[in-house]
Amino acid sequence: MTYQLHYWPGLQGRGEFIRLALEEAGADYVDVVRLPKEQGGGAGALMKAMADPDQPFPPFAPPFLKDGELIIFQTTNILAYLAPRLGLAPEGEQRRVFAAGLQLTIADAVVEAHDTHHPIAGGLYYEDQKAPAKARAADFIAHRLPKYLGFFERVIRRNPDGPGWAVGDGLTTVDLSLFQLVAGLTYAFPRGMAPFGNACPRLSRLCDAVKARPNIAAYLRSDRRIPFNETGIFRYYPELDQDGTWVVEEV
Amino acid sequence: MTYQLHYWPGLQGRGEFIRLALEEAGADYVDVVRLPKEQGGGAGALMKAMADPDQPFPPFAPPFLKDGELIIFQTTNILAYLAPRLGLAPEGEQRRVFAAGLQLTIADAVVEAHDTHHPIAGGLYYEDQKAPAKARAADFIAHRLPKYLGFFERVIRRNPDGPGWAVGDGLTTVDLSLFQLVAGLTYAFPRGMAPFGNACPRLSRLCDAVKARPNIAAYLRSDRRIPFNETGIFRYYPELDQDGTWVVEEV
Repeated sequence: MTYQLHYWPGLQGRGEFIRLALEEAGADYVDVVRLPKEQGGGAGALMKAMADPDQPFPPFAPPFLKDGELIIFQTTNILAYLAPRLGLAPEGEQRRVFAAGLQLTIADAVVEAHDTHHPIAGGLYYEDQKAPAKARAADFIAHRLPKYLGFFERVIRRNPDGPGWAVGDGLTTVDLSLFQLVAGLTYAFPRGMAPFGNACPRLSRLCDAVKARPNIAAYLRSDRRIPFNETGIFRYYPELDQDGTWVVEEV
Repeated sequence: MTYQLHYWPGLQGRGEFIRLALEEAGADYVDVVRLPKEQGGGAGALMKAMADPDQPFPPFAPPFLKDGELIIFQTTNILAYLAPRLGLAPEGEQRRVFAAGLQLTIADAVVEAHDTHHPIAGGLYYEDQKAPAKARAADFIAHRLPKYLGFFERVIRRNPDGPGWAVGDGLTTVDLSLFQLVAGLTYAFPRGMAPFGNACPRLSRLCDAVKARPNIAAYLRSDRRIPFNETGIFRYYPELDQDGTWVVEEV
């Protein structure tokens, strides 16, 4: 059965965390919005599906996934559903619930990264909230970046199943999502992320290892990978970036 | 085995969503921070547990739950673990993943409710971000309240298993969390929530039904229920509240 991913066109957004899992696994999927209109593609069809009055299990917002009759929304929920089916979940209950906790923590970091450019309202233009955006971005770079990235560095360092991945002894959706998080943060805050390689050597190597996986490398070169841009979660506004001087404590 | 809930003292916070599930089920649990110091209670012990260098699966932040040797963090993750064990999960895969999506959407609403008083930085005082807080709270009342609450009203209305609950034909953690979300929003924004009863009659009845459950009613009367206060997620700052004039479209 072909997985149907439903997400906004023209941006990586939250859909990208799901695309990376599907691409790594070589799964049979279709990015529905990119289909021709007569095959159900386009933003109009997405809005219509969102407003379908006959859907008994309506999603709050994209992305949502259809697997046959089943409909699933919320990014971390979709990843939790896909991970074991795609061979991207760790083994055992402790590692499963730990992976879920990490995935949710990545989602929290994504919200905070988004809110650096929209601290007042998602429905208002960035230009109408520039001053608070500067204040929020400055705090994000100084305090939140090291808190999140330092935590993930620690998780990799402590992984009892050997070095390299976040949880368990192989690649999981958590690693793919960490790659995407770091890529997005580096795009949005090149100056703020300057300390990253030195401060988080294990997480940095993990990202390189994800990027080098054959399916991911091919995907990143393809036109299925939408470039980062200023309609997504991670936006490069030079006035929000500033030199990062953060360090990560080894605990 | 006694569940151990680890969370900050003195506030409902995210821990409350877990307490409500444990209380409704009459589960054997201990709110560890409230134990005497010599039994491992107190904020100091919580901070120490958070910083434990020997924990191979470290939580990012409270709340976390221990069930024997197992450690689980992130509120929605803890609820997903507890729900089937406490008889608070719906039946069948579609309803399970839908419940998980709803639970994550409630968590998103909680972040936004929190950020009305802390739109710039969680690490700064409210008093140092009052002006952007006013702007964010005004947008939250005008646009986000009706979006979230209208969505949950729609979910209850469309529930194919009969009226009354959010998903399936019986009480789940989603209903308990909806009660807590509405209670918190009503505490924080009494004027902003004025349209609620008329706009969301089904959600309003659901909240009343949760409150009337014997175990919940007993819990709410007990001293285990910490009152809402201005150190939690939902804070009453009169200057952030304003008359809600929102309506909910029936789709």
